[in-house]
Amino acid sequence: MTAVDAYHISSEPIRKFFVDRNFAFLSTINRDGSPQVTPTWIDLDEVHGLVLINTAVGRLKQKNVSRDPRVSISMIDGRDNPYSMVTIRGKVIEQSRVGADEHIDKLARKYLNTDRYPAHSPNVSRIILKIKPDKILYLPPRYTQYLKSD
Amino acid sequence: MTAVDAYHISSEPIRKFFVDRNFAFLSTINRDGSPQVTPTWIDLDEVHGLVLINTAVGRLKQKNVSRDPRVSISMIDGRDNPYSMVTIRGKVIEQSRVGADEHIDKLARKYLNTDRYPAHSPNVSRIILKIKPDKILYLPPRYTQYLKSD
Repeated sequence: MTAVDAYHISSEPIRKFFVDRNFAFLSTINRDGSPQVTPTWIDLDEVHGLVLINTAVGRLKQKNVSRDPRVSISMIDGRDNPYSMVTIRGKVIEQSRVGADEHIDKLARKYLNTDRYPAHSPNVSRIILKIKPDKILYLPPRYTQYLKSD
Repeated sequence: MTAVDAYHISSEPIRKFFVDRNFAFLSTINRDGSPQVTPTWIDLDEVHGLVLINTAVGRLKQKNVSRDPRVSISMIDGRDNPYSMVTIRGKVIEQSRVGADEHIDKLARKYLNTDRYPAHSPNVSRIILKIKPDKILYLPPRYTQYLKSD
């Protein structure tokens, strides 16, 4: 497999992974040094070149990145070719509660086609993890001739 | 989110994630302690209660688990409800080249509908990572009313 590391987060073919409603798989480090991975919605801050993930204060991934900001993110092109993929390694450079409720509504529009995130709760404080990519790897489509719906 | 940790790898609802052709996202630890995550095909050894992942000798994930066998695996139910998910934490307890070529052919039948893995190469030594689950977390379907194809 030949992965090319010369991509910008806001340029094609990377941007398409964010525009489509692909899930991201976010990997973080647990307190004991073991790996953690979880599916999550994902967004792009094109102005600042950042990846945005919206979680809640106190969730495992939020606690993990507060201790060790290094993350790895994997996405596959679920719409056109699941063997086309992007991997983003980076660091959480900021966590922000400002605008986090509106941001999860924006993600609900993208992923659920609804104007308001259905799981808002007074007991949950939303927070945006802002991730600066250090390395972006992309694999172009493969196995196209084998992919047919069945 | 309420995740229940009382499942066996070969019992429903977990087994369905393996029977369907879902991709798994495997997280490992890099040499510098940072997280790595990669999509992969996945199989189940129901006799021994193990998760099987087929990779190649020398790939990053194979080198990582040779140093630190702890892994985390995430799958979403891509067919019926992507908000239903399973997370498996465990350890690579064995790596085996025995039967690894035939095993990647088996996975090619599952994922590509073809009898022979298309990327066999004399320069690649396939190897099976055998993972013993320590903890299995399952989230049942959510957001069903918002899921319609478009």
